[in-house]
Amino acid sequence: MRQTGRLAQLMQALRVLPGVGPKSAQRMAFHLLQRDRQGAKALADALIAAVEQIGHCRLCRTLTEGDVCPVCANPNRDDAQLCIVETPAEVFAIDQSTGFKGRFFVLNGKLSPLDGIGPDELRLDLLEQRLQTGAVKELILATNTTVEGEATAHYISEMARHFGVRSTRIAYGVPFGGEIEYIDGTTLAHAFNGRREL
Amino acid sequence: MRQTGRLAQLMQALRVLPGVGPKSAQRMAFHLLQRDRQGAKALADALIAAVEQIGHCRLCRTLTEGDVCPVCANPNRDDAQLCIVETPAEVFAIDQSTGFKGRFFVLNGKLSPLDGIGPDELRLDLLEQRLQTGAVKELILATNTTVEGEATAHYISEMARHFGVRSTRIAYGVPFGGEIEYIDGTTLAHAFNGRREL
Repeated sequence: MRQTGRLAQLMQALRVLPGVGPKSAQRMAFHLLQRDRQGAKALADALIAAVEQIGHCRLCRTLTEGDVCPVCANPNRDDAQLCIVETPAEVFAIDQSTGFKGRFFVLNGKLSPLDGIGPDELRLDLLEQRLQTGAVKELILATNTTVEGEATAHYISEMARHFGVRSTRIAYGVPFGGEIEYIDGTTLAHAFNGRREL
Repeated sequence: MRQTGRLAQLMQALRVLPGVGPKSAQRMAFHLLQRDRQGAKALADALIAAVEQIGHCRLCRTLTEGDVCPVCANPNRDDAQLCIVETPAEVFAIDQSTGFKGRFFVLNGKLSPLDGIGPDELRLDLLEQRLQTGAVKELILATNTTVEGEATAHYISEMARHFGVRSTRIAYGVPFGGEIEYIDGTTLAHAFNGRREL
């Protein structure tokens, strides 16, 4: 007997979730149908509502329900500091842990010419408009420390220079709780060269 | 900034899935909204279709779309062997790996008086009807090897005895690939006592 019909379709559909393979999809499908049909219904409703109602903020391009996200709409945040990130999840992470009170700009990607992702796809035109206003004094480049993230940060810092805006890059180094012995060489070299006075 | 509105609702809704905590729910929500809105829509549709159309087989109580499941509807399976399992997932697992060609009966639970789960909740009346027909010659008890699974197997074997039907219990022992050193004592004792001639 192979799983067919609606049950197989549900297992297949669950695999759109990151980290969910055939075994977990099967477990999830049986769990929902045997023990939590109401939860399954609620999940379906939440998915539809989210897909239909969540779009990108007109100003910073993060995910939001309205035209403008709560961070952009908040008059108490500092316009002088603008933090550039690749994804909305990073806005959330930085906001929760760093105490940063400036604004964000979300690229929703990184420069990747081979994949056809250039300045237009990242909406750097919107960023340019923002820099033109003169309100931004510091651009904090918090793209990932990958090759593409670095290239993107470099490209944007050139843009900022053009508008006379100072750019900074988040620090490279050993993660908190990291053991020197197991840190890769590039990180260790950056951590060493970036050492500070105690 | 806290996550609010539809995004927070989606993250919360995703937590009905087994093994999904707040961090994975967040990752899943962002993944779906940023990269796979079509997949999210398809998942919502599959959930609704499954919840609305999948019920229990009239004969064996497994999950199925129609009135009777494919195993019960298959005329080539052997009526003389009836395998008792706790959940539909176990039907699937046994069918895939054992070569068993008999019929199944799914309890959708196990006897648990403290939770108010008795013979009626497990639909043992249906099992009794099946035993009454005289077609079943062997009842294979494949409930879990937990205290409640054991109690359930014992109860059903008494029922079978009443109808003059022979019951067997799946073997206890060391799992394949298991290392004797790390197997718990009870399992090891069962494996030892259940040893067979080579």
